[in-house]
Amino acid sequence: MSHVAELIAVGTELLLGSIANTDGQFISRELSALGIAVYHHTVVGDNPARLRSAVELAKTRSDLIITTGGLGPTCDDLTKNVLSECFGKKLIYNAEAAARMEAYFRRSGREITPNNYQQAYLPEGCVPFQNDWGTAPGCGFVASDGVRVIMLPGPPSECRPMFLERAVPYLGDWTDGAIVSRTLHIFGKGESAVENLLRDRMNAMTNPTLAPYAKEGEMELRLTAKAQDDQAARALIAPAEAELRELLGDLIYGVDGDTLEGVCLRLLKEGGLTLSTAESCTGGLMAKRITDLSGASAAFKGGVVSYWSQVKHEVLGVPQDLLDRCGAVSEPVALAMARGVRGLTGSDLGVSVTGVAGPDPDDRGNPVGLVYVGLAWDGGDFVREVHAVGPRFRVRQSAASHGFDLIRRRLTGLPLF
Amino acid sequence: MSHVAELIAVGTELLLGSIANTDGQFISRELSALGIAVYHHTVVGDNPARLRSAVELAKTRSDLIITTGGLGPTCDDLTKNVLSECFGKKLIYNAEAAARMEAYFRRSGREITPNNYQQAYLPEGCVPFQNDWGTAPGCGFVASDGVRVIMLPGPPSECRPMFLERAVPYLGDWTDGAIVSRTLHIFGKGESAVENLLRDRMNAMTNPTLAPYAKEGEMELRLTAKAQDDQAARALIAPAEAELRELLGDLIYGVDGDTLEGVCLRLLKEGGLTLSTAESCTGGLMAKRITDLSGASAAFKGGVVSYWSQVKHEVLGVPQDLLDRCGAVSEPVALAMARGVRGLTGSDLGVSVTGVAGPDPDDRGNPVGLVYVGLAWDGGDFVREVHAVGPRFRVRQSAASHGFDLIRRRLTGLPLF
Repeated sequence: MSHVAELIAVGTELLLGSIANTDGQFISRELSALGIAVYHHTVVGDNPARLRSAVELAKTRSDLIITTGGLGPTCDDLTKNVLSECFGKKLIYNAEAAARMEAYFRRSGREITPNNYQQAYLPEGCVPFQNDWGTAPGCGFVASDGVRVIMLPGPPSECRPMFLERAVPYLGDWTDGAIVSRTLHIFGKGESAVENLLRDRMNAMTNPTLAPYAKEGEMELRLTAKAQDDQAARALIAPAEAELRELLGDLIYGVDGDTLEGVCLRLLKEGGLTLSTAESCTGGLMAKRITDLSGASAAFKGGVVSYWSQVKHEVLGVPQDLLDRCGAVSEPVALAMARGVRGLTGSDLGVSVTGVAGPDPDDRGNPVGLVYVGLAWDGGDFVREVHAVGPRFRVRQSAASHGFDLIRRRLTGLPLF
Repeated sequence: MSHVAELIAVGTELLLGSIANTDGQFISRELSALGIAVYHHTVVGDNPARLRSAVELAKTRSDLIITTGGLGPTCDDLTKNVLSECFGKKLIYNAEAAARMEAYFRRSGREITPNNYQQAYLPEGCVPFQNDWGTAPGCGFVASDGVRVIMLPGPPSECRPMFLERAVPYLGDWTDGAIVSRTLHIFGKGESAVENLLRDRMNAMTNPTLAPYAKEGEMELRLTAKAQDDQAARALIAPAEAELRELLGDLIYGVDGDTLEGVCLRLLKEGGLTLSTAESCTGGLMAKRITDLSGASAAFKGGVVSYWSQVKHEVLGVPQDLLDRCGAVSEPVALAMARGVRGLTGSDLGVSVTGVAGPDPDDRGNPVGLVYVGLAWDGGDFVREVHAVGPRFRVRQSAASHGFDLIRRRLTGLPLF
């Protein structure tokens, strides 16, 4: 039988936007890894009537209800009171929970107040979840209609460990096998073009499912398979991934946690090679992205941000007549920049970007989004013309990604085009 | 009359826990600043039946429904189709939206595919929200029962600006009187120190209210006043702002949309001055941040990312014996870098950053977070020692901000310390 979970977060601070519902994200990800589907998240404030409505609705469509927040004395144990009422459970004094709380207060040298004893009352027949990360205990119980209920504290530092160490064991063999996801990262084509290529396959696939996501000017394809165990789920993904690789070829640059710059850094390190950057319109973004990664210094020597033509000429050695004749945004200048920074720093690879980030065309009338990306290596070089789309930050992001794509292709022996 | 809003987020990636509902947080915070209460967030997947149920429920208890996600071709415009159906609206071909999309594709040299044209269909009688940050337009309409509906795209980089620039003006006078916010930007002290300074004032203030926000290693204080009109609300804010300025002095570097780098660029332009950067641990982040701004080329000549000591020596001219004696992370090297890049580019100001971004201490045992930020100008220079806190990205962000803070203080005649 397939289980369906629903998450109900309780807390006015969520509705005021003071915090995001990261408990919901965390628990969803863990449930999905356990093979339990989540179809709804609901957030309500510290309000008994609205929480009651949310629970009554959840009972009609889900067989696992997990609440986060609304436990403890500051909210009068709102969640515990409302859920006990909704499921016809009495609250019973739990001597063990009371003793643990008293010990906690003794250890911390604080005075225990009468309202703290509220926390020692738990729904009859529940399994208490000891809280080693704060004061309010959580719990789990099975209602008479078979619905399972789990209550967790709101602060992520209590919610997450309690979910993993108390709730997951409590769920036990109740999960449906395993769900495994695999993400393929694609660069070099727009989302809708790839989607057209895949549309028929996407609709035909059910296990694994195939879902595309646009992300920072790149695209991700996620395969998600469900099976009785991890290994069986992986076995379902493998042929589907092979099929996608056949279709998309070297547009796929990585899987799961990979990034374009991360793949480049790994390839550079593997080859014992060094890199330098010469950036105009990206203004340091390529350098910033590769140095976001710890360990970048193993391969990245540094670079020049040659925003002014003067710096292109004086620091990178781009010939002045080339700048005058062709303009800063041109194929020959991109090549001269890449060669220049390679010579200046003595790196194995020099990569360059020059283009029009916008919002306005440049003084030669080159349109916003026109970018030349150059790469120079021992004995050769290459330049790619890019027509990036979108506002300034998107053009810059895309231009930098094309720079990394050239590096990746060069280091894996792929055609550069 | 008091309005009640409900947010419905559409996206299976939210239920899988791939992302948190940060759109919900953002919009909640903004609505609360507008005086509109939010009582429910709901998240559903890319599933028409479940979205329909969520909307039908929302209609019974809220008079403003804001959806995020489920627009655009990859999800068959799920949200637009379901909401049009729920509110009895036809989808009408919008020639202007189609033309804008065609232009977008033409500019990018990509082929427009039939499924893209879906996006040009919008609910009859709606106000289209032009998307300058992506492709799928959003919209707003008023249903026959008086419920207002607003649909926004899911990616935060599209959702947030569209909410602020399209949805808020669309809501117009629908809020209760006028709500005016004014944000003061603070750099140079930790949140809790400023908060301690302000705690008594914060609790005493009701109109305007005072709320602190931590943001990217900086701090914002938002004053929000409510009155019968804009002018009356501003009149409430003025004395409160004056009081805060008295208390915080030159820790306040800007208001509302200001950023540290934006303030620097404005001051540079006003003074007709040029700037260059010499970056080690920030790896191009300062250059990236200033060139994020259009018009940066008026003052920013460029810079050097001297990640390796070799580049510090050979390109910036930092004396080798200084590097050997003091190490790359040191006060004299920071000064030599700032002077070096100023000389190399002929800029009025040279700013430098060298430090340990982490995750590990450097080979001389300097701790993660130790950063020296240098500034050189005609006839003088200065270096600031910074102890930044947090993971790698936070240390880098903070180090870059200190660089901009030095520039701001120099250009406004404030003590540098």
